[in-house]
Amino acid sequence: MTALPPSDLAMVPFVSVANMLRLVAEIGVETVLAELADAMEADFRRWPDFEKVPRIASHSAGGVIELMPASDGRLYGFKYVNGHPKNTRSGHQTVTAFGVLSDVETGYPLLLSEMTILTAMRTAATSALAARHLAPKGARTMAMIGNGAQCEFQALAFRTIVGVDAVRLFDVSPEATAKAARNLANRGLKVTACRSAEAAVEGAEIITTCTADKQRATILSDNMVGAGVHINAIGGDCPGKTELHPDIVRRASVFTEFTPQTRIEGELQSLPPDHPATELWEVITGAAPGRREAGEITLFDSVGFAVEDFTALRYIHERVQRSSHVEMLDLLADPDDPRDLFGMLVRAGVSAAPRPQG
Amino acid sequence: MTALPPSDLAMVPFVSVANMLRLVAEIGVETVLAELADAMEADFRRWPDFEKVPRIASHSAGGVIELMPASDGRLYGFKYVNGHPKNTRSGHQTVTAFGVLSDVETGYPLLLSEMTILTAMRTAATSALAARHLAPKGARTMAMIGNGAQCEFQALAFRTIVGVDAVRLFDVSPEATAKAARNLANRGLKVTACRSAEAAVEGAEIITTCTADKQRATILSDNMVGAGVHINAIGGDCPGKTELHPDIVRRASVFTEFTPQTRIEGELQSLPPDHPATELWEVITGAAPGRREAGEITLFDSVGFAVEDFTALRYIHERVQRSSHVEMLDLLADPDDPRDLFGMLVRAGVSAAPRPQG
Repeated sequence: MTALPPSDLAMVPFVSVANMLRLVAEIGVETVLAELADAMEADFRRWPDFEKVPRIASHSAGGVIELMPASDGRLYGFKYVNGHPKNTRSGHQTVTAFGVLSDVETGYPLLLSEMTILTAMRTAATSALAARHLAPKGARTMAMIGNGAQCEFQALAFRTIVGVDAVRLFDVSPEATAKAARNLANRGLKVTACRSAEAAVEGAEIITTCTADKQRATILSDNMVGAGVHINAIGGDCPGKTELHPDIVRRASVFTEFTPQTRIEGELQSLPPDHPATELWEVITGAAPGRREAGEITLFDSVGFAVEDFTALRYIHERVQRSSHVEMLDLLADPDDPRDLFGMLVRAGVSAAPRPQG
Repeated sequence: MTALPPSDLAMVPFVSVANMLRLVAEIGVETVLAELADAMEADFRRWPDFEKVPRIASHSAGGVIELMPASDGRLYGFKYVNGHPKNTRSGHQTVTAFGVLSDVETGYPLLLSEMTILTAMRTAATSALAARHLAPKGARTMAMIGNGAQCEFQALAFRTIVGVDAVRLFDVSPEATAKAARNLANRGLKVTACRSAEAAVEGAEIITTCTADKQRATILSDNMVGAGVHINAIGGDCPGKTELHPDIVRRASVFTEFTPQTRIEGELQSLPPDHPATELWEVITGAAPGRREAGEITLFDSVGFAVEDFTALRYIHERVQRSSHVEMLDLLADPDDPRDLFGMLVRAGVSAAPRPQG
């Protein structure tokens, strides 16, 4: 059989894991985090322009598979992401992801990208962007409870974007803490491994919780959170999964990405459905106040939203165009005559018709 | 920089357009259509077992981008598909698609596949499966109005699965008809090019409409449809797009894939929301009658449903395992320690930390 090589229209740029690693290594992870936070801030400023849909989740006993679409009318992006807390037992990732960015005018994909690494970076950039607007001025010490896959990305984002220079780590698994401390060595941070969550929060102006159990947990109890602290709660991100004692949420000023989704998936699950919350874009555009006084507890109740993935895909799409870290994937059928899809089969040598069954 | 080669867990089998063409050429397109119809029938029989969600559509002036997920609790599939009627003017396809099949237990993708060609085949297989249950016994002649990308797949599916041996073609573009006639030569069908839709339906026991305009159109008017005919209406597939005069829909017994979606997207849009309709799976399982008498007009008001794409992905996933027509794609990050995502960056050589901005 002879098939013509696919045309340019058939090809979709693809950023593999290996190429994402090369791209980030080339740019520098701190620079990527800072550029992502800036791109995110620009998109939060035009938040009302986005078509926003709650993620479409398929729940099962072991976890969830989600599709997260968003569009600004010119570009369309979606992410596929799973969350399976027990996966690590079999050597799999808890969260893996990939995504696609498309041209709204034609519906054609412009980019397919790995998003496991990209999601970790966009989550960290979003957290740090929120803290830039909400954390107490001059905050330099962050407690990090949960030292899994997200931890180092969060630490570096807060260092680069917020100015944090000391992190205090705690995880129920000392190996996880050791791993994080090892990875964070020589990156401009004072790293302290702590023996308890209580010890980790000592002296911290910012507390980040990023644990992974799919259940109601109390990673932080009320007495652990002093006046003026900013809490960055990123581990509570699906129905039935929270990290904070409800009293903390009640005492705090709550900031969300997209409140309807956060009420279902975030710490707000613990409170009545009319509990007040401010969306981060309102703070960024000045439509609503952020932190109003020094003693206020601010809580960024983050669950991750599709617009952030859209921004991340848009950023990577721009960035790979200036690099060689991309392959071309033969994903779209592109016949010479768009109406002649079958002709592609003919030219690929579909065999003569067999005798009909009927 | 040195990066370890990705592990098996990181790799996702990928069926490119070229490999889909090779696979279909190797198996034979008629055999693929017949096997797809059988796989579809098996999944329609267990229809209540599926998690069914209406497609998630993002509409714009030029078209629509949709995500179509479905799961049977063991496997999860979704399709990305666009519909942009004006695309052909710029040499693009009206419809392109790709899809992913995943393991529900881990959330990991098992397959990424082109679905532009696969969608044409699954649509044709579904149409023919419906006709096998609904068309008048012994039907051998089919009118085909609209001779675009879907036409030949429909014709061959009806030949192989229903026993049609004559097709009567009409399209507003004579070039489209000539293209279809050329592609269908020597495939066991008597092919007649007709000068009007009225001429095409003469003597036809089955009428297939597959036109592409995104608007209310009247491809078939009431007087063109005689008693006992089976109508396979596949072109009306999004809000505001229909092909049949409402009087035809009113006279016919209406069969759907998933009625809530068809009321929004199919010919049923033209009728009140309580107009009776029977879902195809009910006919296949015997829960509801199909065609009850010779003079009855049956209408398969097809809009395409996610379960059909699930079935198509499941079929291709099984079929490629026995072939070499698959590549491995480095789509998923797979660190040695699942909690050590950042370590992949370290080993890829992320540069030393720059001076913090804060």
